[in-house]
Amino acid sequence: MIIDCHGHYTTAPSALRDYRAAQVEGLKDPSYEPIPADLGISDDEIRESLEGAQLKLQRERGTDLTVFSPRAAGMAHQDGNEPANRYWSEICNDMVHRAVTLYPDNFVGVCQLPQAPGTPPDNCIPELVRCIEELDFIGCNLNPDPTGGYWTDPPLFDRWWYPLYEKMCELDVPAMIHVSSSCNPHFHFTGAHYINGDTAAFMQLLTSDLFADFPTLKFIIPHGGGAAPFHWGRYRGLAQDMGRPPLDELLLENVFFDTCVYHQPGIDLLTKVIPARNILFASEMVGAVRGIDPETGFPFDDTKRYIDDAEGLGDAERKMIFEDNVRRVFPRLRH
Amino acid sequence: MIIDCHGHYTTAPSALRDYRAAQVEGLKDPSYEPIPADLGISDDEIRESLEGAQLKLQRERGTDLTVFSPRAAGMAHQDGNEPANRYWSEICNDMVHRAVTLYPDNFVGVCQLPQAPGTPPDNCIPELVRCIEELDFIGCNLNPDPTGGYWTDPPLFDRWWYPLYEKMCELDVPAMIHVSSSCNPHFHFTGAHYINGDTAAFMQLLTSDLFADFPTLKFIIPHGGGAAPFHWGRYRGLAQDMGRPPLDELLLENVFFDTCVYHQPGIDLLTKVIPARNILFASEMVGAVRGIDPETGFPFDDTKRYIDDAEGLGDAERKMIFEDNVRRVFPRLRH
Repeated sequence: MIIDCHGHYTTAPSALRDYRAAQVEGLKDPSYEPIPADLGISDDEIRESLEGAQLKLQRERGTDLTVFSPRAAGMAHQDGNEPANRYWSEICNDMVHRAVTLYPDNFVGVCQLPQAPGTPPDNCIPELVRCIEELDFIGCNLNPDPTGGYWTDPPLFDRWWYPLYEKMCELDVPAMIHVSSSCNPHFHFTGAHYINGDTAAFMQLLTSDLFADFPTLKFIIPHGGGAAPFHWGRYRGLAQDMGRPPLDELLLENVFFDTCVYHQPGIDLLTKVIPARNILFASEMVGAVRGIDPETGFPFDDTKRYIDDAEGLGDAERKMIFEDNVRRVFPRLRH
Repeated sequence: MIIDCHGHYTTAPSALRDYRAAQVEGLKDPSYEPIPADLGISDDEIRESLEGAQLKLQRERGTDLTVFSPRAAGMAHQDGNEPANRYWSEICNDMVHRAVTLYPDNFVGVCQLPQAPGTPPDNCIPELVRCIEELDFIGCNLNPDPTGGYWTDPPLFDRWWYPLYEKMCELDVPAMIHVSSSCNPHFHFTGAHYINGDTAAFMQLLTSDLFADFPTLKFIIPHGGGAAPFHWGRYRGLAQDMGRPPLDELLLENVFFDTCVYHQPGIDLLTKVIPARNILFASEMVGAVRGIDPETGFPFDDTKRYIDDAEGLGDAERKMIFEDNVRRVFPRLRH
């Protein structure tokens, strides 16, 4: 079985984006009070949004199941306040739940959280519990920068986050550390903010004792871990200079990297320097890069091909990456 | 000849740091007026600071010449205002000039700029001209984020920077895009801010038409280009999706990557995906990572070994990386 641990509902019917746009517009008026969504999207519209996209690509590429969550750039926590983001998370998660219910063999849900700039993330606990316990979701996406590129809320090792981590451990669900869109002109969202968010998160984990406090907490760092594998020697050396334990001991029981790296040499490096048990198959389709690589004739984000062709991976390691690790990191997955 | 294009005077006598510390302390009082430095550092102190460090490592590792600039983390533009940073840049650049004057076969100078948060970078032109024309320096370090991790000044493609770029082109000097220390707790300086600064800069150049306006402008992105080579497929794909020209056409006449990547697999990837003519040898010694890699028995930052052993590099390409490219990118180098 081939499980893609990183897919977003990027193709959701446009009424969903319209609702958020109206919210964001409304918030310009200080007296505006956000209201829950009632979108009137039909099951057929949902089917249509998936059949020609994610489901078609699953069939074409030979993958079986996608761990599916709301559109990452759509979370845009910086655009809303707490109530607006709560309603927005609920409707986005409900849309994913409907997709999962229509195609239970193809998708399993991961939720967006109603984070908001300056709001302690305790506020996310009710929606996390609802998604895990009522909607049978298996994890969450956690935005390390709800300010959208200004990084003015506390870092991941701050106790600010601890109540949410406690609940994640209690529910036995991991988080993918995934920023959203950027409102900082320095950072293109998919080209800089995503990758930098990954790299910043990795270094925050390296310098902190978070996993001493939460030994069972699990994080997936997407996009191949940002820059971390490319600079693995730097990170090993920095940890050593700081008197930290070796990285495998310090982080690799708790931190995992996905395979959203869109060329063969990148996947070859990833699978060379990171132990196979810490790599989870992922493509993020339909996502950041949608074209055909003229050098190969195949889609950039058809990452299964790169894993199939990765130098030096044995069959057992490939099975770990495609399936076993995803099951271990997402214990609630029951497919 | 082996030219290391990226070295900082990290070992400068402590009186230099003391001067800056007094400045930064003084600035807490709004009535404080910065004054130029008069440090009383002797030539012998400078010799001593280099003999057991950079010069020893050059001999041990078999490199000849280091392109030498003030300590990157020491620039800390966010800690000062315009006059404080001007005096600070002058004394730092003068210290590098004294090192170069004492060891003209071993070092050639690159300058720090007196950037300051919120200050248009035109203010850097006099110090750039002084360093190039009077001190025989051959380039500058340009901090893309003088706010130290909050990224609130304009990005590199903004016209805010154009007067400085015009002067760089007129003087025929490149800039290394190099952030400084971070005052944002999200970003460890050498583990996250440096690498993220590189990645952000690369994407800013990819999305802009800066080199149409400045066809001869040259930037070196240090630390192997941040995350760019590891995600080269992503960047090729993003450029294609945006209708931009191929990356080699769009950027590779103007953008160069150094080899400060501290393990063999990283250098193998760098030299595989980036054309040899765009790679400049560098170690950043004595810098971010100072220990011995237990996996190899050699210093993490002894990058010459990785280039020597890089898969698939021919002798001509190796010579380009070690020498020819540095000469091309720094036309004022006359060694």
